[in-house]
Amino acid sequence: MTDTDHAAFIRLTYQLAAEAAGRGDDPFGALLVVEGRVVLSAANTIHTEHDLTRHAEMNLVSLAARTLPAEALARSTLYTSTEPCVMCTGAVFWAGIPRVVFGCSAPAVAQVYGATWAVACRETFGRLRSSVEVVGPVLEAEGLPLHRAAGD
Amino acid sequence: MTDTDHAAFIRLTYQLAAEAAGRGDDPFGALLVVEGRVVLSAANTIHTEHDLTRHAEMNLVSLAARTLPAEALARSTLYTSTEPCVMCTGAVFWAGIPRVVFGCSAPAVAQVYGATWAVACRETFGRLRSSVEVVGPVLEAEGLPLHRAAGD
Repeated sequence: MTDTDHAAFIRLTYQLAAEAAGRGDDPFGALLVVEGRVVLSAANTIHTEHDLTRHAEMNLVSLAARTLPAEALARSTLYTSTEPCVMCTGAVFWAGIPRVVFGCSAPAVAQVYGATWAVACRETFGRLRSSVEVVGPVLEAEGLPLHRAAGD
Repeated sequence: MTDTDHAAFIRLTYQLAAEAAGRGDDPFGALLVVEGRVVLSAANTIHTEHDLTRHAEMNLVSLAARTLPAEALARSTLYTSTEPCVMCTGAVFWAGIPRVVFGCSAPAVAQVYGATWAVACRETFGRLRSSVEVVGPVLEAEGLPLHRAAGD
């Protein structure tokens, strides 16, 4: 997989994030890619579903678990507009997804919201003794304005 | 809240865990208690829902978010049969639940399953700079047989 591919998929997650914001949710989107092809997508639905656990990656992992065989998950890459939080990192771990590529880093996004919850997902995977590969940030400067608009 | 109350609620989570196992799910159960009263309960449904994210605490937090006002969550205690995993710890954090009481510790349960994913939830809350109070293990010896039976 080339960096160009990563950029194209991250731009798609930003588009999903913008669409989520347009629906009144928070600006987060995620994709599942298998062999270079997008097989599933999801976005944040915490406001429209009145459920704070409905982060983009949680929605994606749930959908993937319900609709794809485990062997597809084991060959997949999860692309997400923002570095996964602790909850979503745990979901990726349980799902056996071997690679995560994120757009904006957790510290950069937390700073926009004035929040203190930034935890590096690489650190969480490490504590789980997981070998999940993490790539990112990718095109962070293109993604942060989505959060600045939401934080206003 | 006395230690006796904790024991009674933890025994209820073990009962929920046993019922989950009876349905073909994994032996985990959780309760939400507000002012000494059980207001919600949930159990693991990962097999019956074909969704590995459906841990007892995730189901409970989702249900709580959808059905209770935030101010009730802010006065609640989550009781769970086993120390919450990283995913569920994150969900508790996002929910603003101020206290967790667990039965069996993550290391003890991981050992039963021969697994390496044990992470202390106190450590995760600490990394999130959260002030969630954690109590446990409570009656661990009464809970571990549920896992030994499932691990066989």
